[in-house]
Amino acid sequence: MKLDPTKFADWQIAEAAEADMKSVAQLAAELGLHDDEVIPIGRQLAKIDQRRLRERLANSPRGKYINVSAITPTPLGEGKTTTTIGLVQALGRRGHCVTGAIRQPSGGPTFNIKGSAAGGGLAQCIPLTPFSMGLTGDIDRIVNAHNLSMVALTARMQHEQNYDDAALAKRNLRRLDIDPARVQSRWVMDFCAQSLRNITIGKGGKMDGYEMDSGFAIAVSSELMAILAVADSLADMRERIGRMVMANNRSGRPVTTSDLEVAGAMCAWMVDALDPTLAQTLEGQPMLVHAGPFANIAIGQSSVIADKIGTRLSDYHVTESGFGADIGYEKFWNLKCRYSGLTPDAVVIVATIRALKMHGGGPEVKPGLKLDDVYTRENLCLLEQGCENLLAHIETVQKSGVRPVVCINSFYTDTAAEVALVKRLAEQAGAYAARSEHWLKGGEGAQELAEAVEAAAAEPNDFHFLYDLDLPLRDRIDRIAREVYGADGVEFLPAAEEKLQALAADPASKALGTCMVKTHLSLSHDPARKGRPRGWTLPVRDILIYQGAGFVVPVAGDIKLMPGTGSDPGFRRIDVDTETGRVHGLF
Amino acid sequence: MKLDPTKFADWQIAEAAEADMKSVAQLAAELGLHDDEVIPIGRQLAKIDQRRLRERLANSPRGKYINVSAITPTPLGEGKTTTTIGLVQALGRRGHCVTGAIRQPSGGPTFNIKGSAAGGGLAQCIPLTPFSMGLTGDIDRIVNAHNLSMVALTARMQHEQNYDDAALAKRNLRRLDIDPARVQSRWVMDFCAQSLRNITIGKGGKMDGYEMDSGFAIAVSSELMAILAVADSLADMRERIGRMVMANNRSGRPVTTSDLEVAGAMCAWMVDALDPTLAQTLEGQPMLVHAGPFANIAIGQSSVIADKIGTRLSDYHVTESGFGADIGYEKFWNLKCRYSGLTPDAVVIVATIRALKMHGGGPEVKPGLKLDDVYTRENLCLLEQGCENLLAHIETVQKSGVRPVVCINSFYTDTAAEVALVKRLAEQAGAYAARSEHWLKGGEGAQELAEAVEAAAAEPNDFHFLYDLDLPLRDRIDRIAREVYGADGVEFLPAAEEKLQALAADPASKALGTCMVKTHLSLSHDPARKGRPRGWTLPVRDILIYQGAGFVVPVAGDIKLMPGTGSDPGFRRIDVDTETGRVHGLF
Repeated sequence: MKLDPTKFADWQIAEAAEADMKSVAQLAAELGLHDDEVIPIGRQLAKIDQRRLRERLANSPRGKYINVSAITPTPLGEGKTTTTIGLVQALGRRGHCVTGAIRQPSGGPTFNIKGSAAGGGLAQCIPLTPFSMGLTGDIDRIVNAHNLSMVALTARMQHEQNYDDAALAKRNLRRLDIDPARVQSRWVMDFCAQSLRNITIGKGGKMDGYEMDSGFAIAVSSELMAILAVADSLADMRERIGRMVMANNRSGRPVTTSDLEVAGAMCAWMVDALDPTLAQTLEGQPMLVHAGPFANIAIGQSSVIADKIGTRLSDYHVTESGFGADIGYEKFWNLKCRYSGLTPDAVVIVATIRALKMHGGGPEVKPGLKLDDVYTRENLCLLEQGCENLLAHIETVQKSGVRPVVCINSFYTDTAAEVALVKRLAEQAGAYAARSEHWLKGGEGAQELAEAVEAAAAEPNDFHFLYDLDLPLRDRIDRIAREVYGADGVEFLPAAEEKLQALAADPASKALGTCMVKTHLSLSHDPARKGRPRGWTLPVRDILIYQGAGFVVPVAGDIKLMPGTGSDPGFRRIDVDTETGRVHGLF
Repeated sequence: MKLDPTKFADWQIAEAAEADMKSVAQLAAELGLHDDEVIPIGRQLAKIDQRRLRERLANSPRGKYINVSAITPTPLGEGKTTTTIGLVQALGRRGHCVTGAIRQPSGGPTFNIKGSAAGGGLAQCIPLTPFSMGLTGDIDRIVNAHNLSMVALTARMQHEQNYDDAALAKRNLRRLDIDPARVQSRWVMDFCAQSLRNITIGKGGKMDGYEMDSGFAIAVSSELMAILAVADSLADMRERIGRMVMANNRSGRPVTTSDLEVAGAMCAWMVDALDPTLAQTLEGQPMLVHAGPFANIAIGQSSVIADKIGTRLSDYHVTESGFGADIGYEKFWNLKCRYSGLTPDAVVIVATIRALKMHGGGPEVKPGLKLDDVYTRENLCLLEQGCENLLAHIETVQKSGVRPVVCINSFYTDTAAEVALVKRLAEQAGAYAARSEHWLKGGEGAQELAEAVEAAAAEPNDFHFLYDLDLPLRDRIDRIAREVYGADGVEFLPAAEEKLQALAADPASKALGTCMVKTHLSLSHDPARKGRPRGWTLPVRDILIYQGAGFVVPVAGDIKLMPGTGSDPGFRRIDVDTETGRVHGLF
C-alpha cells in the first residue's frame, strides 16, 4: 500500500509498504540467485554470499553501471539517495533487471538530527527499521573488531609498564615500546558521542590500564569501515587488517595489529561483513546495502564488492557516491573504479533549484533555520548565477570521459521557467537533463530521468582516470585541485611537505590511493564560498597514511571523526508499539 | 564426525561436527515449531518468535524442569555448562524430547583467558564460531541501547550547561539539573577493557561534552542485560527500560531514561533481543541460548523466556545457573522461579574431585598455575573433608523442597575409591549421585546421570521459596545468609543501614527482587575460606537499587563490572582460514 508522502512521514510510508513487500526468497529468485548464495537474516533481509556468487558469475556479461552524484549540496542534502532509489524504481518499471547500491547508515545521524538515510517519500529502501538500526550487524562487527584492537593495544601498554623484559618473555611477548604520545588509533562507537571525543583513559591503579589521552570516533569513520568498502576478498581484507598501524613506538616505527597479534581475531569478527545485504525499494527492486564509510579517510560510498555483484546480476546497476561530484565522484572515478576495474556508463548529477539559488547568492540554508522566501518563489536571476556550480560538476564528469545526466530533483515550489532554465544550461554544457518527481510519485515520477540515463548509457564513452599511479603524489593533489576543484594551485604547509618527502622516498607508497579531505559544502576548502569559486589556492596542511585501507589522505579540511548530538535529537520521538513490535518515529 | 577430545581442541571438535550438523529447519521441525515461529539468522542459527510460540503453547503441558548448579567452584570452573549439554545429549539419546538453556557468552572471556562458554570435549553447543562471537547480535543490541542512553545523558548535560532555561524551553526541554557527581550509569563494551574502567570524558571545549569522571562496564554486567533475562514480554521490557535510573539530579531525585526521552529508542534496539536463539548440541539436541547476565546485579543465568519456552516444547528442559548453588541456585530458586512461575523437578549439583580436594584443604588452584600432585593422586582424606562443601549445597537444594542429584564430573585421574566416597556421602545426605563422562564420551558418557535425573524428577516434590515477599529486606538478607551461606548472622554497615531504612519506608520496594552480591569462590564473603566455613558474620556494606531490572542488590562482595585482559589473551591464537572463511583457535 502506498501512502501520500505529502501527508505521511517516511516511516509511515515504509510501514505501509512493508505489509506487502516481496519476500527475500522472491527477490532472490527474481535476481537469479541460487539458494546457496542467499543467507537469510531475519524475516525481511538476506546477505548474499559474495564469494560463491562471484565464482559462478565470473564470466557473465556486465550490465550498465550508473553512478549518482550531485552538485555542491546545502547542509540539507540534495536527495541523492532518494534519487538513486527513484531511478532504480523507474528503470525497474521500464522492464529492466536493475539493482541499486547504497551505504548502510550510521546510528549517529539516525538518532541525532539528520535521520535515516533510506531515501524518502515514495523512493525508499525497506525494511526501514532494520535498515536504520544496524541492518545485518556489519557496523557492530566493525565496532567489535576495532575495539578489540584497542583492548589489545592498551592492555599491552599496561603489561609492558608492569613487567620487565624477562617477565614479558615468559609470556612469549617482546617489548613493543609503544609511545603513548603517538597512538593514532581510537576506540569507536556508532553514535554521535561528543563527550567521548577527548578522554583520559587508564585512571586508577597499575591494573587499571595505562593512563593516557584517548578518544572515540564514530564507527563509520574507522579504518575498518574504509577497508570493508574496498576489500576485494576475505584474503585481501585479512591482509589489509594486518597492515593497520595502531601507534608508533618510541623509535618512531609503526606498531601494527599484526605486532599486537590481534589481526586474526579482528578478521574473525569481520568475515560475515564481507557479504552485502539484500534489501528492496518500495516498488520491489533489489537494493544492495553494503559498507558506509565516511568520505574523509575513505571512499565515501558503498563497497567495491556490491558494485561487482550488481553489475553482474542486472542490466542496470545504480550506485551512489557521497557528497558532491568534486568529492564523491572524484573518489568513485579515481579510487573505486580503479580498485574494481569497473567503468561507469553514465553519471547522474542531482541538483535542486533550492541549492542552485543558494550557490547564486541566496541566504544561508541550514537545518532548523526557516527557509528564506527566495527559495520558494521564482527567481531566475539567482538560479542562473547558481548554475555555475552545476556547470563545474558537469565539466568534472566530462573530464572522466563520461556523459553526465543532470537530475533536477523536484520540489513543488519549483516553477516551470526555473526547471527550463536549468535544463537549457545543462544541455548547452553537453549534459542530458531531466526533471524528476520520484519523492512524490516513486518510479513513475522518474521516467524522464530513466530515459535520459538509458540514452546516456547507450552512448560509447571514453572513461579514463584523472591521473596514472606513476604520477607523484604532489602532482596528483595538484591535478585534483586544479581540474576538479577549480583551484589555481596547492600550497603544502610544513607538516604536509615533510610527509610528501617521506612518501616520495618510499616506492611502495605509489600503490596507495589518494583520498582527499575537503569540505563538501564548497568546491573550495572554505565552506562559505558557494557557486564556483575562482582565484584561490588549496592549502594542504597534513597528509595522513592509512596502510590498512591503502590510502594517503591529503588534509585540506577538518576531519571530524566524532560528530555531536544536538539538543533536539531524533531519539526523543522513537518508540516501539509493544503489541506488534514495530518501531515508530524513525525519520 | 566426532574427534577424540583427548587429542583435539574444542574448536576442532566443533568444526568437525558442524560439517554434518542438523539444519535449522530440521531442528525446528523436530521441536514441532511452526514455520512462522522460526526466524532464520544465517545458515546455522535461528531465533524463535517467543510471542507467537507462547501464544500457541499457552495451554500445552509442561515437561520436567531441571536446573544445573554446582558446588563452590575453583577458579577453573566445575564444568557446569559442559554438564548441562552432556545431560541434554544423554536425555536425547534416551529418546526424550529435550531442550537445554544456557547463557550467551561475553566477548570478554572469549578473547581473554577463559575462552568460550560452549561446553567442551564431546559436550558442546554448536555452531561454535557464531556462538562465541556475538551469536545473533543480542549483546550488540544491548551495547547500542545502553550507549545511546549515555549519549542522551551526556549530551543533555552539555546542552544544559551551554543553554539557559529560555534556550532550553525553545527546544522543548526542561532542565533536569543532573548532578555530575551522582551519575550511576556507565558506558558499556563487551570486552575486558580495563583501560576504560576509570576515565575522564568531555575534555576540550564547550561543544565537546561535559567534563566529568566516567567509565565503561562490560556489556553483560549491564542493567539492560539484567532486564533481558527477566523480562516476560515486550511491554514488560519497555516498562523496565523506562524505569532505569541513569543519575540523580542536584536535589537527589532520580533521573531516568524516560526523563531523558530515550527509553523508546532504547527499546527499539532491544525488540529482537527478546527472541531466544536456537542452536544445538554436538549430538543434535536443541539448545536455547538467551541472555547472559552477570550474577552480581542480575540473576546470572539464561532468560525467563527461554525456560518458559523450553518447558512447553519438551519432556525435559535443562537450564543452567551460574556459580555455585549458594549464588546461582539461590537466585534461580527465589528470583527466576518467582518471576517465571516455573518450579524445578530436579536440581543437579556438579562437583569435581579436584574442587572437593581443594575444599578439604588442598593447595591453591588457579589458571596458569601448575596443578599440585594432590589433585591427580588418590587422597581420600582431603576429599572427605572437602565434601563438607558439597553437603552444604545439597542441604540448600533440599531446603527448596527439591531432590538434588550430585554429578561427579569425571577426570581421568579420579580413582574408583574417590568416586565411591563422594557417591556414598551424597547418598547418605539424601541426594542421588552419579559419575559422568560426557566430556570424554558425550551423551553416552552421561547415561548414569540421566537415569538419576529421571528418577529424581519423577518424585513428587515440595518446592517453596526461602522467603515470602512480605518479609522485610533486612530479614530476607539474614535468612539467605544463615540458611544458604551458613553464616551466624549479618552485619549491616552504615551505608547499607541507611538504604535499608529508606527502602523500608517505600512500600513499592517489596516487589523488588533481592539479588545478593557475594564471591562465588567461598560459601562465605571471603574467597580464601574454602570448605564449609562456620562461625562468621556476613558484612553487607551497601545496597544498590536497580529500578529497571527490578532488583535491590545487597553488596557483600566486590562488584567487578569491567574485568581486565591478561598478558596472554586468547585473541593471540585466533585467525581465519581465508579460503573457507572458518575461524580457528576459539577455545
